[in-house]
Amino acid sequence: MYSDRIKHPALQHKLITAQEAAGMIRNNTVVGSSGFTQSGDSKVVLPALAERATHDPLQITLITGASLGHGTDGLLANAHALHRRLPFQVDPVLRKSINKGEVLFIDQHLSETAEQLKSGHFPHMDIAILEAALIEEDGSIVPTTSVGNSAAFAQLADKIIIELNISVPLSVNGLHDIFYTGNFPNHRIIPVTRPDMRIGRTSIPVDPEKIIGIVITDIQDSAADIAAPDAATTAIAGHLLEFFNYEIKKGRLTQSLLPLQAGIGKVANSVLTGLLNSDFHDLTMYSEVLQDSTFDLIDAGKMLFASGSSITVSAPYYEKIFREIERYKKHIVLRPQDISNAAEVIRRLGVISINTALECDIYGNVNSTHIGGTHMMNGIGGSGDFARNAYLSIFVTSAAGKNNDISRIVPMVPHVDHSEHDVDVIVTENGLADLRNLAPRERAKLMIAHCAHAEYRPHLQDYFTEACQAGGQTPHLLHKVFDWHTQYKNTGSMKKEVLEPEIY
Amino acid sequence: MYSDRIKHPALQHKLITAQEAAGMIRNNTVVGSSGFTQSGDSKVVLPALAERATHDPLQITLITGASLGHGTDGLLANAHALHRRLPFQVDPVLRKSINKGEVLFIDQHLSETAEQLKSGHFPHMDIAILEAALIEEDGSIVPTTSVGNSAAFAQLADKIIIELNISVPLSVNGLHDIFYTGNFPNHRIIPVTRPDMRIGRTSIPVDPEKIIGIVITDIQDSAADIAAPDAATTAIAGHLLEFFNYEIKKGRLTQSLLPLQAGIGKVANSVLTGLLNSDFHDLTMYSEVLQDSTFDLIDAGKMLFASGSSITVSAPYYEKIFREIERYKKHIVLRPQDISNAAEVIRRLGVISINTALECDIYGNVNSTHIGGTHMMNGIGGSGDFARNAYLSIFVTSAAGKNNDISRIVPMVPHVDHSEHDVDVIVTENGLADLRNLAPRERAKLMIAHCAHAEYRPHLQDYFTEACQAGGQTPHLLHKVFDWHTQYKNTGSMKKEVLEPEIY
Ligand SMILES: CC(C)(COP(=O)(O)OP(=O)(O)OC[C@H]1O[C@@H](n2cnc3c(N)ncnc32)[C@H](O)[C@@H]1OP(=O)(O)O)[C@@H](O)C(=O)NCCC(=O)NCCS
Ligand SMILES: CC(C)(COP(=O)(O)OP(=O)(O)OC[C@H]1O[C@@H](n2cnc3c(N)ncnc32)[C@H](O)[C@@H]1OP(=O)(O)O)[C@@H](O)C(=O)NCCC(=O)NCCS
Repeated sequence: MYSDRIKHPALQHKLITAQEAAGMIRNNTVVGSSGFTQSGDSKVVLPALAERATHDPLQITLITGASLGHGTDGLLANAHALHRRLPFQVDPVLRKSINKGEVLFIDQHLSETAEQLKSGHFPHMDIAILEAALIEEDGSIVPTTSVGNSAAFAQLADKIIIELNISVPLSVNGLHDIFYTGNFPNHRIIPVTRPDMRIGRTSIPVDPEKIIGIVITDIQDSAADIAAPDAATTAIAGHLLEFFNYEIKKGRLTQSLLPLQAGIGKVANSVLTGLLNSDFHDLTMYSEVLQDSTFDLIDAGKMLFASGSSITVSAPYYEKIFREIERYKKHIVLRPQDISNAAEVIRRLGVISINTALECDIYGNVNSTHIGGTHMMNGIGGSGDFARNAYLSIFVTSAAGKNNDISRIVPMVPHVDHSEHDVDVIVTENGLADLRNLAPRERAKLMIAHCAHAEYRPHLQDYFTEACQAGGQTPHLLHKVFDWHTQYKNTGSMKKEVLEPEIY
Repeated sequence: MYSDRIKHPALQHKLITAQEAAGMIRNNTVVGSSGFTQSGDSKVVLPALAERATHDPLQITLITGASLGHGTDGLLANAHALHRRLPFQVDPVLRKSINKGEVLFIDQHLSETAEQLKSGHFPHMDIAILEAALIEEDGSIVPTTSVGNSAAFAQLADKIIIELNISVPLSVNGLHDIFYTGNFPNHRIIPVTRPDMRIGRTSIPVDPEKIIGIVITDIQDSAADIAAPDAATTAIAGHLLEFFNYEIKKGRLTQSLLPLQAGIGKVANSVLTGLLNSDFHDLTMYSEVLQDSTFDLIDAGKMLFASGSSITVSAPYYEKIFREIERYKKHIVLRPQDISNAAEVIRRLGVISINTALECDIYGNVNSTHIGGTHMMNGIGGSGDFARNAYLSIFVTSAAGKNNDISRIVPMVPHVDHSEHDVDVIVTENGLADLRNLAPRERAKLMIAHCAHAEYRPHLQDYFTEACQAGGQTPHLLHKVFDWHTQYKNTGSMKKEVLEPEIY
């Protein structure tokens, strides 16, 4: 059975059901799972574990690459099966449990989880659940649509359960590039000097003795659901492309730019779509996630090569990519996330990184994670890995939200994920602020004039003017710096009329 | 004249006075200067420029490696000669001008200045003033007690003024290791895999045509003035050494630890002094600054090798180092700051970084720069370069300051230089909080129990308890989160009695 996918003979006898696999997971252990931005995740074992937990209570620490698809995190949270969760999630149900303090969430730079695990501070990983397309003769496994932390988990876990996904064509073999940095003090150089450079092997080495079961599945990845460009995202993309053109005119970039990283979401998608209808050419990506627009650019001959850790696309794109995988393999590679997000490579290649902010402050600090400064949205993900070391670190956001009841440019962000030191450019639909090599007071002027929403601009200006009277490198009025956020919490709006009601 | 120090024959005719050199600096230009943590700085040309500016007004953008010695930044600020200053300073006079908004200060990661300059966004550098011990036959220069950004400035500046410092022995030749990473998209790998590895050349290549003048000086570096260990710093060092021993027992470290980085100051000095009387051996450093204690460890045979960008020591140590430079050259190397502080190398070597915080919050965010969230102290320096990529990122601070009127553990820091994602361990004289792989609510408990000062502990606990009732991943009460800071500003104390006065 499945001898085309299980080439190691002894392993052919290890087929088990998802329920049997879930039964092997013990209470109070650390479990690793493949899965990065919804792709290549555990499709049946983790859901079966959630099912089991509803009648056989248990709690685990679950470590993944990044987010899982199919609402699996929500199933696990509902079943109270998660004690601790890292390094990233996007699930609305799990999010509630995290914010209630029921699940301990460690919000971690995606490049760092494998390093942290290797260092041995974290409790030992008992079982890893790894989706694979194929098990080679030597027991090594060929992953599917993501690599994430699977290579590290395969090394570190005591036992391994394979989810063999037969919906993924065998021809994905060759898509992946598996490289290990090793342990201190013998950590190796990551020798990537171009996005298209392969430095490792195509499968993840696995000790066949560790494989305690193989579960067959044909469930596909959750399809990405990317909102079509709207007026705001199109305007943001427009400002950004204009900025790139300006940089080219100044001789600081060429029409091939530098390797791009783009966070998932509609703004990033709009920017990449904007590149499609432009004079830019011979583009490359060194990113986390390859999305629809990446493949559009490849198909249009605009993009030569894209390196990532996962393919997260909409349903028709999955179909097309699998159908034409041999062609795409010449243009893409999937790497472990400690390589796709490595500080070393990001700095060396001079990546242009484009990520979305929840809110920004007038001095260029960015909140990517905490709504109202307290409630977790998703997590920092790879945004910090890229923003810190990028050649150009760009954050995009709409100027205001919820019918303008929220200004996304605020006096001070109540949670800092990316500090003023790490943010080069901020773009909203109103305009772009190039903050490079400016002092904080200069940045504030640009942020207010270019990025703020017209409705909030005068109030930001008032705040800034008054703060400057109190002095400092970064003028602030701490006694009222979060008045806008407090008012929003109390009244549902940051708008000034509510803040200072007219007296009749 | 000086033919032993000026080996390029044509350059022997370029001797000028400091005043003549200062006269070559034009208004509204960008000037680079050697100097890193007070060493290897311009001793006569910048002071002469300050002098000139008092009667012949001009303003420049001054870029250095890091801080200058001899109060030079203060002289320049007093003479209103600084329009813009980057990337770091420690001068009380300049600090005042910065905080008044008179000097535009760009507080930058020390690793990034050279990258930013190479990218061409910043206005072109007109003149670089570089201290050297020696000019070689080919015009290349051998730096003195620091490398800083001198290698980059030599490449990027249109013109170069050399300050030839004859108080520095010629035998420093061989101490430095100059390596260029090059420009995007052909940025090179930095191949350092051990602290003692040399990857470049011993002198900084300089086009002799660019040298417009050579000024002779014999002024020595400002001596470092390091306070002796006191009860608090000794306690902090004790906690840290106990922690290292615990990590060794757990098998996560060996008695050689991993390469150390230590910020300048009395705590770092105490820790290194603590290592002197311990069982640790075969230690190494991969740091910015080599200070007195580094040389004590080398002399004691405890430290095999130390890599840095400058030697910043007290007067007797300068004397001893210069006297025995041939011996020390086997144990130390000075590198450009984009190499000493390179993310790539710090991560690869697994550096243990120890830096000082102005204040920390209960969730592990660190303020290194802004007093009261607004007023610049020194700058982030290299602390972010190291903290982000270190194997262990440690911050130390006293639990309280100014007769306990300031708690240095606060509900929220009003400026974030190092976010919760980047901080592993926080130590005060009260104890150590190991924050690795903990969720924010878990971190808060440790910070309050282990690090806070007894006087503030119950109030932090009250804040945290109340905040938890409002929920969230990182519970906060934004409407009163900065009450302690505001009260300190208004009354000179954060103490609770003042906050809620008894009613008689
Ligand atoms: C920051 C991030 C959440 C933005 O994603 P997005 O889909 O553009 O988010 P939105 O702008 O729709 O905002 C999400 C929600 O928060 C709300 N929100 C945003 N800012 C808010 C604020 N300041 N106060 C209150 N609510 C706010 C929005 O209104 C929206 O609520 P809704 O779902 O009820 O409409 C997302 O990009 C992210 O998780 N980033 C971190 C990880 C990352 O950058 N990874 C990089 C590579 S993938
Ligand atoms: C953070 C840093 C300023 C601490 O240095 P330090 O010498 O230990 O500083 P101190 O604890 O003496 O504090 C400096 C002053 O600020 C005051 N201060 C500290 N925290 C304060 C607070 N929360 N509110 C008000 N004042 C505060 C202190 O009382 C002291 O004032 P004083 O000079 O009037 O006594 C210093 O380490 C630094 O500049 N770090 C950033 C750069 C860096 O880390 N480089 C790394 C490698 S060198």
